[in-house]
Amino acid sequence: MTKGMKQRIIEQAAPDLEKIEIALEHHLNPNVELVRQIASHLLFSGGKRLRPLLMVHSARLCGYNNDFEIEFSIIFEYLHAATLLHDDVVDEADIRRGKKAAHTKWSAPKVVLTGDFLMALSLDIAAKTREPDIISVIAKITRDMSQGEIDQLSKKGKLNLSEEEYRKIIERKTAVLIQGTCQSGAILAKAPKEKETALSQYGFHLGMAFQMADDLLDYTASAKELGKNPGADLREGKLTLPLIHSLSNASQKDKEWMQDAIAATLFNPDQFKKLKEKLYTYKGIEYTKDRARDHVKKAKACLNDFDDCQSKQLLCLIADYSIERKV
Amino acid sequence: MTKGMKQRIIEQAAPDLEKIEIALEHHLNPNVELVRQIASHLLFSGGKRLRPLLMVHSARLCGYNNDFEIEFSIIFEYLHAATLLHDDVVDEADIRRGKKAAHTKWSAPKVVLTGDFLMALSLDIAAKTREPDIISVIAKITRDMSQGEIDQLSKKGKLNLSEEEYRKIIERKTAVLIQGTCQSGAILAKAPKEKETALSQYGFHLGMAFQMADDLLDYTASAKELGKNPGADLREGKLTLPLIHSLSNASQKDKEWMQDAIAATLFNPDQFKKLKEKLYTYKGIEYTKDRARDHVKKAKACLNDFDDCQSKQLLCLIADYSIERKV
Repeated sequence: MTKGMKQRIIEQAAPDLEKIEIALEHHLNPNVELVRQIASHLLFSGGKRLRPLLMVHSARLCGYNNDFEIEFSIIFEYLHAATLLHDDVVDEADIRRGKKAAHTKWSAPKVVLTGDFLMALSLDIAAKTREPDIISVIAKITRDMSQGEIDQLSKKGKLNLSEEEYRKIIERKTAVLIQGTCQSGAILAKAPKEKETALSQYGFHLGMAFQMADDLLDYTASAKELGKNPGADLREGKLTLPLIHSLSNASQKDKEWMQDAIAATLFNPDQFKKLKEKLYTYKGIEYTKDRARDHVKKAKACLNDFDDCQSKQLLCLIADYSIERKV
Repeated sequence: MTKGMKQRIIEQAAPDLEKIEIALEHHLNPNVELVRQIASHLLFSGGKRLRPLLMVHSARLCGYNNDFEIEFSIIFEYLHAATLLHDDVVDEADIRRGKKAAHTKWSAPKVVLTGDFLMALSLDIAAKTREPDIISVIAKITRDMSQGEIDQLSKKGKLNLSEEEYRKIIERKTAVLIQGTCQSGAILAKAPKEKETALSQYGFHLGMAFQMADDLLDYTASAKELGKNPGADLREGKLTLPLIHSLSNASQKDKEWMQDAIAATLFNPDQFKKLKEKLYTYKGIEYTKDRARDHVKKAKACLNDFDDCQSKQLLCLIADYSIERKV
């Protein structure tokens, strides 16, 4: 079923996806070669182009019928890539999208500066929309994400993270960007305020579901599926909902064992397997799946007032896919 | 004479400078405490507020008579601070404005993220101008600066840097930001294109003069005046015009001695003194002063077609001051 869902999305989106790739390459071309190399390393390593698709179809759903939605949709792919480059330096993660993270191939300063450069590209295209509200959205995204990352850095290794704190973290880490992307599609189409809000809310819930699914995959997927070893969050001292919920349900003895395991941050495969079992026993996996499903349901409900059309179908399909995917 | 110039600028600008400080503090307030601390460390450590003043008076010179020029002028102070934070991480410089650089007090990732946050604040205010052309200017500044820094990283320690390469470096490092600041003042005032171009060119030449003066001070000022040890550029492997010009004029023997000294990157005070003497002997100091003066002359000439007024006088005074200052 999942594979079918992914294929249906790709089939429907194929002509757009092709144009999106061309636009992404086109804007990188006339620049310093090293910058192009570092940016390309991340940009063309199998990203799903989720954000461009979301902006294109949010705009079309609101009746946008000029020819620039593809060009403008890459605003948020560049912005996303910029934040990933900075995050990789911040997190010192070694693997991104199954490839070595940029900062393991180039020095951290060069990666930071390439992030700034992609931010500039994003802005340059955003300015061409002539919509200052889209700039405000980008500013809000950047502000929330940078503050969120700093906040998360301070909370690294915190063993008693609450579900509310977790929600705030993933909202700023993932949801605000997807939310802003969908909202910007509506702004581009000069949609009435209630449609802009509906698409913004759709994006928010989709982003929350998407990140919860990601956090689940870090425990449930195989290394091959993930393109990196599972358990990465834990090794980086990041507690996510499956664990947070399980900790709150666990017996005192199991809770202490889990906390010790987390504090140790180094796991052998047996320990990781045992920890995973606890996440099933104490229903952390199930609970997180349920919460992600809630968000998918809410995301789709936000689209209720829009007329049925291909874009609406695709946005619903993307919402369903966000929690069914294996990568 | 110099002190008189500085005092005249401060006297004329005092009421604006006070409002600029308030605006800079105001926008930092409602945010994560740690972000505020890191940003404040740099922002409130004796910056001259040159960029806000330039935008305010560029706008007024073009007849802007709304009340928002102070609010909008901090766009470029935040953007400047954002680039300084990233540059400090990139250059691993320990001292900034006579204080410890932020990344020596906080981890490099936190400083990078605070830079992103200040970029977001800058954008947020820029969006409120409702002038997409100002966003394009910010995008161009960010693109040029990040590419310039990466380019400069690749050229670190290069012993045969040409004057042309040096000009390209300082253009992207300093001039584009000051240029964009003045241009944005004109855009804000909805000035005709020729006035926008004139102010943009004024800013370009001012920026070039300003950076050349900075590069001179790194050799000619005392540690007390600079707030850091002179010779910092050289220790970071950055060749600037006084040295580049002297190298091209030096005898083979002296050239080799200078190149060896640069390559060693570690100087004792005697060696540094001897190197400085060569810069006078081979007229690197004089030549750089002359080139800086050329730019000041050109900067002031760009203002010829504007009617005489207080803003014009102040912009001329700032141009003169840019090369006469001791810090």
